[in-house]
Amino acid sequence: MLEKKRRAGVAPDVPASSSKKPRASAAASYAESLRSKLRPDASILTTLRSLAASASKSKAATNSLADHDPSADPISSYIVVADQDSASVTSRINRLVLGAARSILSGRGFSFAVPSRAASNQVYLPDLDRIVLLRRESARPFASVATARKATVTARVLSLVHAVLRRGIHVTKRDLFYTDVKLFGDQSQSDAVLDDVSCMLGCTRSSLHVVASEKGVVVGRLVFADDGDRIDCTRMGVGGKAIPPNIDRVSGIESDALFILLVEKDAAFMRLAEDRFYNRFPCIILTAKGQPDVATRLFLRRLKVELKLPVLALVDSDPYGLKILSVYMCGSKNMSYDSANLTTPDIKWLGVRPSDLDKYRVPEQCRLPMTDHDIKVGKELLEEDFVKQNEGWVKELETMLRTRQKAEIQALSSFGFQYLTEVYLPLKLQQQDWI
Amino acid sequence: MLEKKRRAGVAPDVPASSSKKPRASAAASYAESLRSKLRPDASILTTLRSLAASASKSKAATNSLADHDPSADPISSYIVVADQDSASVTSRINRLVLGAARSILSGRGFSFAVPSRAASNQVYLPDLDRIVLLRRESARPFASVATARKATVTARVLSLVHAVLRRGIHVTKRDLFYTDVKLFGDQSQSDAVLDDVSCMLGCTRSSLHVVASEKGVVVGRLVFADDGDRIDCTRMGVGGKAIPPNIDRVSGIESDALFILLVEKDAAFMRLAEDRFYNRFPCIILTAKGQPDVATRLFLRRLKVELKLPVLALVDSDPYGLKILSVYMCGSKNMSYDSANLTTPDIKWLGVRPSDLDKYRVPEQCRLPMTDHDIKVGKELLEEDFVKQNEGWVKELETMLRTRQKAEIQALSSFGFQYLTEVYLPLKLQQQDWI
Repeated sequence: MLEKKRRAGVAPDVPASSSKKPRASAAASYAESLRSKLRPDASILTTLRSLAASASKSKAATNSLADHDPSADPISSYIVVADQDSASVTSRINRLVLGAARSILSGRGFSFAVPSRAASNQVYLPDLDRIVLLRRESARPFASVATARKATVTARVLSLVHAVLRRGIHVTKRDLFYTDVKLFGDQSQSDAVLDDVSCMLGCTRSSLHVVASEKGVVVGRLVFADDGDRIDCTRMGVGGKAIPPNIDRVSGIESDALFILLVEKDAAFMRLAEDRFYNRFPCIILTAKGQPDVATRLFLRRLKVELKLPVLALVDSDPYGLKILSVYMCGSKNMSYDSANLTTPDIKWLGVRPSDLDKYRVPEQCRLPMTDHDIKVGKELLEEDFVKQNEGWVKELETMLRTRQKAEIQALSSFGFQYLTEVYLPLKLQQQDWI
Repeated sequence: MLEKKRRAGVAPDVPASSSKKPRASAAASYAESLRSKLRPDASILTTLRSLAASASKSKAATNSLADHDPSADPISSYIVVADQDSASVTSRINRLVLGAARSILSGRGFSFAVPSRAASNQVYLPDLDRIVLLRRESARPFASVATARKATVTARVLSLVHAVLRRGIHVTKRDLFYTDVKLFGDQSQSDAVLDDVSCMLGCTRSSLHVVASEKGVVVGRLVFADDGDRIDCTRMGVGGKAIPPNIDRVSGIESDALFILLVEKDAAFMRLAEDRFYNRFPCIILTAKGQPDVATRLFLRRLKVELKLPVLALVDSDPYGLKILSVYMCGSKNMSYDSANLTTPDIKWLGVRPSDLDKYRVPEQCRLPMTDHDIKVGKELLEEDFVKQNEGWVKELETMLRTRQKAEIQALSSFGFQYLTEVYLPLKLQQQDWI
């Protein structure tokens, strides 16, 4: 433990660059000089405690997050599906099927009412800070050449989901497809109908026990139960704990962390885990290793809802980094109906921000020119509602587009391998430098 | 626990397919009839115990695996780098640098002797069942226009590795690149020189503390320490434990497993983890989620060397599945010099094998036609030494190419979501149906 403390301490870093160009070495010595700006950890911790306190007090945010159940609100004009337990999903399926049976017996045939998931039916709600689905349904009658097949597939998916829930197991979309390849034809069809079924039943895909594959990992001041096994994330070495694919098997979340540190990439996660950053500044560190997967998004949201902790994000300083933040915060378009359960509002952009490049004097050679595609994505982001509503983000994005430069988190390694954990992040936290 | 036992038990499965075609339902009922062939678990366990015993007794295999240190063998005509502790790597670097300094002082300038890693210098050794590098070195003198830059890069990488080792930390290739972007230009250059340095020092890349990102997960009857934290893989829920990127921080490996089950894909891993398959048949289950990464390969090898357990592989029945086995067993060409430390010989192909498709009567619609590319890869595999030396594998591959059909592990879901864990795998184990 002592040895670990020391490693995470303030021992002199690896000399940054042997390059003889005055500019680079000036940058390196300036970067090193920032170390002296650091106040004692106790002082930074006080800052973090007040951040955590304000996050847990902001009832407004967490209420809209945790308690809003639009499926209980009949006059709601939009669809936001909610987590439901197996018994409830099963009984919803039963009701649907009984309705169909009655309709058939009365000679009217049967038809499913399926909410439209078309892009034109998706809308961003600033109040909720999420993309949702408008309540607009179309009929899928069995007695029509155009929809007979799709109605059959829908019935089949309903019956498969029912069977999965009855057994109390979880399956993947691929498993579902293979149970009736002849009927489904190809997986995109069973996947699409599965999303329909989610909307029809008003419950999340994870409530249907159809799970996505996992790729996220977590480490730090967090204890939870995964399928009944108690996991202490301070004792997960440097590898961390794989985030479970089935969020409904996660329970008993406890933590003495002051914030959640959301990391875009693997390499930074590894640095933080190896340096046991969470022991110096109590936090929970998680990453989806790039584009966030559903399991990691669900997990982050659960942590935020249950622990009411602030979430600080560490992403690359490029349009893609911001896009990743947007997926965590507002959801992706193709799962908009599920956005309420997948999104975590109020994530703070800690770094690496375009303005950091000059502030920390990241050497020119560690910055990368933006490609045409980067610039296009950056300009599109400027038009997005979730960016527009945060003045600080707009400014940063404009800086990026003006300078046409981007940089990875890893660029900070130019000041020493542990600069990220020893200087950059502590200073950021001390200066409350998030937006 | 009881509830878990029950889930993994022999409760009637989800009815397989509602399709009315006689062929598909006949296949389903045949598949179900195989359940009755299963002997009690105690009997299957006896089979597995003798498998485990024979694996631990096969001294020949494990000796060549664990004890062979070609770097200690001066007359060896090939290069196989070995794991070295930090002190030893540091002193090797020191010796190299002292040599260079002496050479400079004596007026002869300095030059590195760098082993060639060209494809023409790579060879498959049937004895070792691995790809290795022939001992053929080229000089990289500083006093030559052609190599001055590369010699400088080499010196710089040596000094960076030295610094990393001194600090007792681990870094990624990307970190290394960013410490001197100006000199390295682009990452492929620092990566290539890092591999050179590995060969020059005769030690693995992980001994240099330069690690790859992790993507593997493990679950089951295994206890180990990750950076000093004790990890019990029977208590890792369904998510499993992320395999650590830095193998040298792994210690204290213990297990009461009878075999290691190597799984190609995520979805099958999840099924096995959720059904706690390892409690019914004591085993360690691991997956790299597709193409094996370095961390997972190192980890598998460590398990095999220390626990002397048989390794059974569950991969898709397609050329790609076999290719994945080849990477685990013989290494990939671009890291041949490190193959001794990355490869695990003697992996048994448990399934899904081309002959299983008929044996288990996998319905036609769950099989996929091989593409032209698949066929090309399949034919190339038939020419590979590691396939040729196993008659059973050749036969299976010929069957695949004759029928032009492939199938995923997930295709077994057509007989019910838990068919894999309840019937297919237990029957395979009972019948010792591996090759």
